[in-house]
Amino acid sequence: MIMMDMWNKVFIAKSLDGYIAGPNGEIDWLDPKPDENKPEDASGEDMGFGALMEEVDAIVMGRVTFEFVRDYDGAWPYLKPLYVLSNSLSEVPERLQDKVTLVLGSLSEALEKIHQNGHLKLYVDGGQVIHSFMKEDLIDEMFITTVPVVLGGGIPLFRDLPTRLEFQHVKSESFFGFYVQDHYKRLRK
Amino acid sequence: MIMMDMWNKVFIAKSLDGYIAGPNGEIDWLDPKPDENKPEDASGEDMGFGALMEEVDAIVMGRVTFEFVRDYDGAWPYLKPLYVLSNSLSEVPERLQDKVTLVLGSLSEALEKIHQNGHLKLYVDGGQVIHSFMKEDLIDEMFITTVPVVLGGGIPLFRDLPTRLEFQHVKSESFFGFYVQDHYKRLRK
Repeated sequence: MIMMDMWNKVFIAKSLDGYIAGPNGEIDWLDPKPDENKPEDASGEDMGFGALMEEVDAIVMGRVTFEFVRDYDGAWPYLKPLYVLSNSLSEVPERLQDKVTLVLGSLSEALEKIHQNGHLKLYVDGGQVIHSFMKEDLIDEMFITTVPVVLGGGIPLFRDLPTRLEFQHVKSESFFGFYVQDHYKRLRK
Repeated sequence: MIMMDMWNKVFIAKSLDGYIAGPNGEIDWLDPKPDENKPEDASGEDMGFGALMEEVDAIVMGRVTFEFVRDYDGAWPYLKPLYVLSNSLSEVPERLQDKVTLVLGSLSEALEKIHQNGHLKLYVDGGQVIHSFMKEDLIDEMFITTVPVVLGGGIPLFRDLPTRLEFQHVKSESFFGFYVQDHYKRLRK
Protein backbone atom coordinates (compact mmCIF):
# COMPACT_ATOMS: atom_id res chain seq x y z
CA MET A 1 0.00 0.00 0.00
CA ILE A 2 1.36 3.41 -0.98
CA MET A 3 0.79 5.82 1.91
CA MET A 4 0.70 8.83 -0.40
CA ASP A 5 -2.64 7.64 -1.70
CA MET A 6 -4.27 7.70 1.71
CA TRP A 7 -5.53 10.90 3.22
CA ASN A 8 -8.27 12.43 5.30
CA LYS A 9 -9.55 15.91 4.58
CA VAL A 10 -11.93 18.25 6.38
CA PHE A 11 -14.15 20.79 4.64
CA ILE A 12 -16.31 22.60 7.16
CA ALA A 13 -17.73 25.96 8.16
CA LYS A 14 -17.40 27.51 11.60
CA SER A 15 -18.37 30.75 13.28
CA LEU A 16 -15.74 33.35 14.18
CA ASP A 17 -15.68 31.86 17.66
CA GLY A 18 -15.18 28.31 16.39
CA TYR A 19 -18.63 26.71 16.52
CA ILE A 20 -20.05 24.47 13.80
CA ALA A 21 -23.59 24.83 15.17
CA GLY A 22 -25.31 26.98 17.77
CA PRO A 23 -26.19 25.90 21.32
CA ASN A 24 -29.35 24.17 20.03
CA GLY A 25 -27.82 22.90 16.80
CA GLU A 26 -28.75 26.07 14.86
CA ILE A 27 -27.14 26.42 11.45
CA ASP A 28 -29.21 29.32 10.09
CA TRP A 29 -26.17 31.60 10.51
CA LEU A 30 -24.22 29.60 7.89
CA ASP A 31 -25.82 31.52 5.03
CA PRO A 32 -25.70 35.24 4.36
CA LYS A 33 -28.94 37.09 5.06
CA PRO A 34 -31.60 37.03 2.30
CA ASP A 35 -30.77 40.60 1.31
CA GLU A 36 -27.14 39.69 0.71
CA ASN A 37 -25.59 37.62 -2.06
CA LYS A 38 -26.28 33.97 -1.61
CA PRO A 39 -23.87 31.29 -2.78
CA GLU A 40 -26.54 29.75 -5.03
CA ASP A 41 -27.08 33.10 -6.75
CA ALA A 42 -23.44 33.46 -7.63
CA SER A 43 -22.84 31.33 -10.72
CA GLY A 44 -22.65 28.04 -8.85
CA GLU A 45 -19.62 28.99 -6.75
CA ASP A 46 -19.25 26.17 -4.23
CA MET A 47 -15.94 27.28 -2.70
CA GLY A 48 -14.21 24.11 -3.84
CA PHE A 49 -16.56 21.56 -2.32
CA GLY A 50 -17.38 19.92 -5.67
CA ALA A 51 -13.70 19.56 -6.56
CA LEU A 52 -13.00 17.92 -3.21
CA MET A 53 -15.96 15.57 -3.65
CA GLU A 54 -14.58 14.55 -7.08
CA GLU A 55 -11.29 13.68 -5.44
CA VAL A 56 -12.49 11.64 -2.48
CA ASP A 57 -13.23 7.91 -2.43
CA ALA A 58 -15.76 8.17 0.37
CA ILE A 59 -17.26 10.32 3.10
CA VAL A 60 -16.99 9.53 6.79
CA MET A 61 -19.22 11.04 9.47
CA GLY A 62 -20.75 10.25 12.84
CA ARG A 63 -24.29 9.56 13.92
CA VAL A 64 -25.35 13.14 14.67
CA THR A 65 -24.22 14.51 11.31
CA PHE A 66 -25.68 11.51 9.51
CA GLU A 67 -29.08 11.92 11.18
CA PHE A 68 -29.07 15.53 10.08
CA VAL A 69 -28.28 14.60 6.46
CA ARG A 70 -30.69 11.63 6.56
CA ASP A 71 -33.60 13.78 7.68
CA TYR A 72 -32.86 16.57 5.22
CA ASP A 73 -35.74 17.16 2.81
CA GLY A 74 -33.83 17.67 -0.42
CA ALA A 75 -32.07 15.25 -2.75
CA TRP A 76 -29.36 12.98 -1.30
CA PRO A 77 -26.30 15.22 -1.44
CA TYR A 78 -23.47 12.73 -1.97
CA LEU A 79 -22.20 10.96 -5.09
CA LYS A 80 -19.63 8.91 -3.15
CA PRO A 81 -20.13 6.13 -0.59
CA LEU A 82 -20.88 7.36 2.91
CA TYR A 83 -19.60 5.60 6.04
CA VAL A 84 -21.29 6.36 9.32
CA LEU A 85 -19.17 5.63 12.38
CA SER A 86 -21.62 4.74 15.12
CA ASN A 87 -21.90 2.14 17.81
CA SER A 88 -25.50 3.10 18.63
CA LEU A 89 -27.24 3.31 15.25
CA SER A 90 -28.60 -0.06 14.19
CA GLU A 91 -29.93 0.58 10.73
CA VAL A 92 -29.99 2.78 7.69
CA PRO A 93 -33.29 3.69 5.95
CA GLU A 94 -34.02 1.40 2.99
CA ARG A 95 -33.75 4.22 0.45
CA LEU A 96 -30.14 4.80 1.58
CA GLN A 97 -28.93 1.21 1.87
CA ASP A 98 -26.91 1.33 -1.36
CA LYS A 99 -25.37 4.64 -0.35
CA VAL A 100 -24.61 4.34 3.35
CA THR A 101 -22.59 1.82 5.37
CA LEU A 102 -22.68 1.70 9.15
CA VAL A 103 -19.30 0.95 10.68
CA LEU A 104 -18.91 -0.24 14.27
CA GLY A 105 -15.89 -0.35 16.50
CA SER A 106 -12.97 1.91 17.28
CA LEU A 107 -11.70 4.48 14.80
CA SER A 108 -8.77 2.30 13.78
CA GLU A 109 -11.03 -0.73 13.29
CA ALA A 110 -13.44 1.39 11.25
CA LEU A 111 -10.65 2.82 9.12
CA GLU A 112 -9.28 -0.65 8.49
CA LYS A 113 -12.66 -1.73 7.10
CA ILE A 114 -13.00 1.40 4.99
CA HIS A 115 -9.49 1.05 3.58
CA GLN A 116 -10.09 -2.64 2.84
CA ASN A 117 -12.93 -1.51 0.57
CA GLY A 118 -10.38 0.48 -1.43
CA HIS A 119 -11.57 3.81 -0.01
CA LEU A 120 -8.37 5.57 0.92
CA LYS A 121 -9.12 9.24 0.26
CA LEU A 122 -11.67 10.35 2.79
CA TYR A 123 -13.74 13.44 3.43
CA VAL A 124 -14.24 13.55 7.18
CA ASP A 125 -17.25 15.51 8.39
CA GLY A 126 -18.98 16.37 11.66
CA GLY A 127 -17.59 17.67 14.94
CA GLN A 128 -17.29 14.38 16.79
CA VAL A 129 -15.67 12.38 13.98
CA ILE A 130 -13.29 15.19 13.04
CA HIS A 131 -12.26 15.28 16.69
CA SER A 132 -11.72 11.48 16.74
CA PHE A 133 -9.45 11.78 13.71
CA MET A 134 -7.64 14.80 15.22
CA LYS A 135 -6.97 12.89 18.45
CA GLU A 136 -5.16 10.23 16.43
CA ASP A 137 -3.43 12.87 14.27
CA LEU A 138 -5.17 11.54 11.18
CA ILE A 139 -6.26 14.82 9.58
CA ASP A 140 -4.06 15.75 6.60
CA GLU A 141 -5.80 18.81 5.20
CA MET A 142 -8.47 21.22 6.34
CA PHE A 143 -10.59 23.66 4.40
CA ILE A 144 -12.16 25.79 7.11
CA THR A 145 -14.66 28.42 6.12
CA THR A 146 -15.29 31.13 8.68
CA VAL A 147 -18.69 32.81 8.87
CA PRO A 148 -18.43 36.37 10.24
CA VAL A 149 -20.61 35.90 13.28
CA VAL A 150 -19.71 35.37 16.92
CA LEU A 151 -22.29 32.84 18.13
CA GLY A 152 -21.37 33.01 21.80
CA GLY A 153 -21.78 29.27 22.32
CA GLY A 154 -22.56 26.00 20.57
CA ILE A 155 -20.93 22.87 19.24
CA PRO A 156 -17.20 23.49 18.86
CA LEU A 157 -15.18 22.41 15.83
CA PHE A 158 -11.99 21.89 17.84
CA ARG A 159 -11.91 20.09 21.17
CA ASP A 160 -9.32 19.11 23.76
CA LEU A 161 -6.35 17.21 22.39
CA PRO A 162 -3.43 15.53 24.14
CA THR A 163 -0.79 17.19 21.92
CA ARG A 164 -0.26 20.14 19.62
CA LEU A 165 -0.63 19.66 15.89
CA GLU A 166 1.21 21.98 13.53
CA PHE A 167 -0.27 22.89 10.20
CA GLN A 168 0.96 24.81 7.19
CA HIS A 169 -1.13 27.62 5.78
CA VAL A 170 -1.72 27.04 2.07
CA LYS A 171 -4.21 29.71 1.04
CA SER A 172 -6.97 32.01 2.23
CA GLU A 173 -9.76 33.14 0.00
CA SER A 174 -12.86 35.22 0.62
CA PHE A 175 -16.20 34.46 -1.03
CA PHE A 176 -19.28 36.64 -1.52
CA GLY A 177 -17.73 39.30 0.71
CA PHE A 178 -18.89 37.08 3.55
CA TYR A 179 -16.98 33.85 3.99
CA VAL A 180 -13.24 33.38 4.44
CA GLN A 181 -11.92 29.96 3.58
CA ASP A 182 -8.56 28.89 4.96
CA HIS A 183 -6.72 25.91 3.57
CA TYR A 184 -4.27 24.17 5.89
CA LYS A 185 -2.09 21.10 5.50
CA ARG A 186 -0.73 19.08 8.39
CA LEU A 187 2.98 19.79 8.81
CA ARG A 188 4.71 16.52 9.63
CA LYS A 189 8.47 16.60 10.06
CA MET B 1 -19.53 64.04 22.07
CA ILE B 2 -19.36 62.65 18.55
CA MET B 3 -19.82 58.87 18.70
CA MET B 4 -17.83 58.34 15.51
CA ASP B 5 -14.71 59.23 17.42
CA MET B 6 -15.16 56.47 19.98
CA TRP B 7 -14.17 52.93 19.23
CA ASN B 8 -12.63 49.79 20.67
CA LYS B 9 -10.39 47.57 18.59
CA VAL B 10 -8.84 44.18 19.17
CA PHE B 11 -5.51 43.09 17.70
CA ILE B 12 -4.62 39.62 18.87
CA ALA B 13 -3.20 36.27 17.82
CA LYS B 14 -4.89 32.93 18.35
CA SER B 15 -4.21 29.31 17.51
CA LEU B 16 -6.22 27.51 14.82
CA ASP B 17 -8.43 26.19 17.59
CA GLY B 18 -9.02 29.62 19.10
CA TYR B 19 -6.63 29.82 22.06
CA ILE B 20 -4.58 32.91 22.94
CA ALA B 21 -2.31 30.89 25.24
CA GLY B 22 -1.73 27.23 25.99
CA PRO B 23 -3.12 25.35 29.02
CA ASN B 24 -0.26 26.67 31.19
CA GLY B 25 -0.13 30.11 29.60
CA GLU B 26 2.38 29.04 26.92
CA ILE B 27 2.93 31.51 24.09
CA ASP B 28 6.00 29.94 22.48
CA TRP B 29 3.83 28.81 19.56
CA LEU B 30 3.11 32.42 18.56
CA ASP B 31 6.36 32.69 16.62
CA PRO B 32 7.50 30.60 13.68
CA LYS B 33 10.25 28.10 14.47
CA PRO B 34 13.83 29.41 14.54
CA ASP B 35 14.56 27.82 11.17
CA GLU B 36 11.69 29.69 9.53
CA ASN B 37 11.34 33.38 8.72
CA LYS B 38 10.78 35.43 11.78
CA PRO B 39 8.78 38.64 11.78
CA GLU B 40 11.76 40.64 13.08
CA ASP B 41 13.91 39.38 10.23
CA ALA B 42 11.48 40.56 7.60
CA SER B 43 12.08 44.26 7.13
CA GLY B 44 10.15 45.34 10.22
CA GLU B 45 6.81 43.92 9.08
CA ASP B 46 4.55 44.23 12.11
CA MET B 47 1.28 43.19 10.42
CA GLY B 48 -0.29 46.59 11.11
CA PHE B 49 0.28 46.75 14.85
CA GLY B 50 2.30 49.97 14.67
CA ALA B 51 -0.34 51.69 12.55
CA LEU B 52 -3.05 50.71 15.02
CA MET B 53 -0.92 51.95 17.93
CA GLU B 54 -0.53 55.32 16.17
CA GLU B 55 -4.28 55.58 15.89
CA VAL B 56 -5.32 54.68 19.43
CA ASP B 57 -5.60 57.06 22.38
CA ALA B 58 -4.93 54.37 24.95
CA ILE B 59 -4.60 50.67 25.66
CA VAL B 60 -6.94 48.75 27.97
CA MET B 61 -6.14 45.37 29.47
CA GLY B 62 -6.83 43.25 32.55
CA ARG B 63 -4.63 42.17 35.41
CA VAL B 64 -3.33 38.94 33.91
CA THR B 65 -2.18 40.53 30.66
CA PHE B 66 -0.74 43.50 32.55
CA GLU B 67 1.27 41.30 34.90
CA PHE B 68 2.67 39.54 31.87
CA VAL B 69 3.70 42.85 30.24
CA ARG B 70 4.90 44.28 33.57
CA ASP B 71 7.23 41.35 34.18
CA TYR B 72 8.57 41.27 30.64
CA ASP B 73 12.31 41.85 30.52
CA GLY B 74 12.55 44.14 27.50
CA ALA B 75 11.76 47.82 27.05
CA TRP B 76 8.26 49.02 27.91
CA PRO B 77 6.34 48.26 24.71
CA TYR B 78 3.70 51.01 24.67
CA LEU B 79 3.87 54.65 23.62
CA LYS B 80 0.27 55.35 24.65
CA PRO B 81 -1.32 55.42 28.13
CA LEU B 82 -2.24 52.00 29.47
CA TYR B 83 -5.32 51.40 31.62
CA VAL B 84 -5.45 48.23 33.68
CA LEU B 85 -8.97 47.14 34.64
CA SER B 86 -8.59 45.33 37.93
CA ASN B 87 -10.37 45.23 41.23
CA SER B 88 -7.62 43.17 42.87
CA LEU B 89 -4.38 44.91 41.90
CA SER B 90 -3.53 47.66 44.36
CA GLU B 91 -0.47 49.28 42.85
CA VAL B 92 1.69 49.81 39.82
CA PRO B 93 5.51 49.60 40.04
CA GLU B 94 7.09 53.04 40.46
CA ARG B 95 8.86 52.90 37.07
CA LEU B 96 5.45 52.57 35.38
CA GLN B 97 3.46 55.13 37.35
CA ASP B 98 3.50 57.72 34.56
CA LYS B 99 2.49 55.08 32.01
CA VAL B 100 -0.11 52.93 33.70
CA THR B 101 -3.41 53.78 35.42
CA LEU B 102 -5.33 51.24 37.50
CA VAL B 103 -9.08 51.51 37.02
CA LEU B 104 -11.55 50.00 39.48
CA GLY B 105 -15.23 49.25 39.11
CA SER B 106 -17.49 47.83 36.46
CA LEU B 107 -16.63 48.03 32.78
CA SER B 108 -19.02 50.92 32.21
CA GLU B 109 -17.61 52.82 35.20
CA ALA B 110 -14.09 52.17 33.96
CA LEU B 111 -14.94 53.30 30.43
CA GLU B 112 -16.54 56.47 31.76
CA LYS B 113 -13.30 57.36 33.56
CA ILE B 114 -11.18 56.55 30.51
CA HIS B 115 -13.41 58.57 28.18
CA GLN B 116 -13.39 61.50 30.63
CA ASN B 117 -9.62 61.59 30.19
CA GLY B 118 -10.21 62.18 26.47
CA HIS B 119 -9.17 58.64 25.56
CA LEU B 120 -11.89 57.51 23.16
CA LYS B 121 -10.06 55.25 20.70
CA LEU B 122 -9.02 52.16 22.57
CA TYR B 123 -6.93 49.10 21.87
CA VAL B 124 -8.46 46.34 23.99
CA ASP B 125 -6.16 43.45 24.86
CA GLY B 126 -6.24 40.22 26.83
CA GLY B 127 -8.79 37.43 26.92
CA GLN B 128 -10.77 38.52 29.95
CA VAL B 129 -11.10 42.18 29.03
CA ILE B 130 -11.90 41.44 25.38
CA HIS B 131 -14.62 39.13 26.66
CA SER B 132 -16.00 41.84 28.99
CA PHE B 133 -16.20 44.24 26.05
CA MET B 134 -17.77 41.54 23.82
CA LYS B 135 -20.44 40.82 26.43
CA GLU B 136 -21.50 44.47 26.25
CA ASP B 137 -21.19 44.53 22.44
CA LEU B 138 -18.46 47.14 22.69
CA ILE B 139 -15.96 45.71 20.19
CA ASP B 140 -16.01 47.61 16.88
CA GLU B 141 -13.12 46.03 14.99
CA MET B 142 -10.96 42.96 15.32
CA PHE B 143 -7.62 42.10 13.75
CA ILE B 144 -7.26 38.43 14.49
CA THR B 145 -4.07 36.68 13.50
CA THR B 146 -4.26 32.91 13.28
CA VAL B 147 -1.18 30.82 14.00
CA PRO B 148 -1.25 27.49 12.13
CA VAL B 149 -1.16 25.24 15.15
CA VAL B 150 -3.92 23.31 16.91
CA LEU B 151 -3.03 23.64 20.60
CA GLY B 152 -5.65 21.24 21.88
CA GLY B 153 -6.47 23.37 24.93
CA GLY B 154 -5.68 26.63 26.67
CA ILE B 155 -7.07 30.10 27.28
CA PRO B 156 -9.79 30.80 24.72
CA LEU B 157 -10.12 34.09 22.86
CA PHE B 158 -13.90 33.82 22.58
CA ARG B 159 -16.13 32.82 25.48
CA ASP B 160 -19.84 32.34 26.13
CA LEU B 161 -22.01 35.29 25.17
CA PRO B 162 -25.71 35.95 25.69
CA THR B 163 -26.33 36.93 22.04
CA ARG B 164 -24.86 36.57 18.58
CA LEU B 165 -22.74 39.36 17.18
CA GLU B 166 -22.48 39.80 13.43
CA PHE B 167 -19.32 41.12 11.87
CA GLN B 168 -18.31 42.13 8.38
CA HIS B 169 -15.20 40.65 6.82
CA VAL B 170 -12.91 43.45 5.65
CA LYS B 171 -9.71 41.71 4.59
CA SER B 172 -7.52 38.67 5.04
CA GLU B 173 -3.81 38.75 4.58
CA SER B 174 -1.11 36.18 5.08
CA PHE B 175 2.31 37.04 6.50
CA PHE B 176 5.59 35.15 6.35
CA GLY B 177 3.78 32.15 4.87
CA PHE B 178 2.77 31.45 8.45
CA TYR B 179 0.20 33.84 9.90
CA VAL B 180 -3.21 34.72 8.50
CA GLN B 181 -4.64 38.00 9.71
CA ASP B 182 -8.38 38.58 9.40
CA HIS B 183 -9.85 42.03 9.78
CA TYR B 184 -13.49 42.21 10.88
CA LYS B 185 -15.80 45.13 11.65
CA ARG B 186 -18.89 44.86 13.79
CA LEU B 187 -21.99 44.97 11.59
CA ARG B 188 -24.61 47.07 13.35
CA LYS B 189 -27.92 47.66 11.59
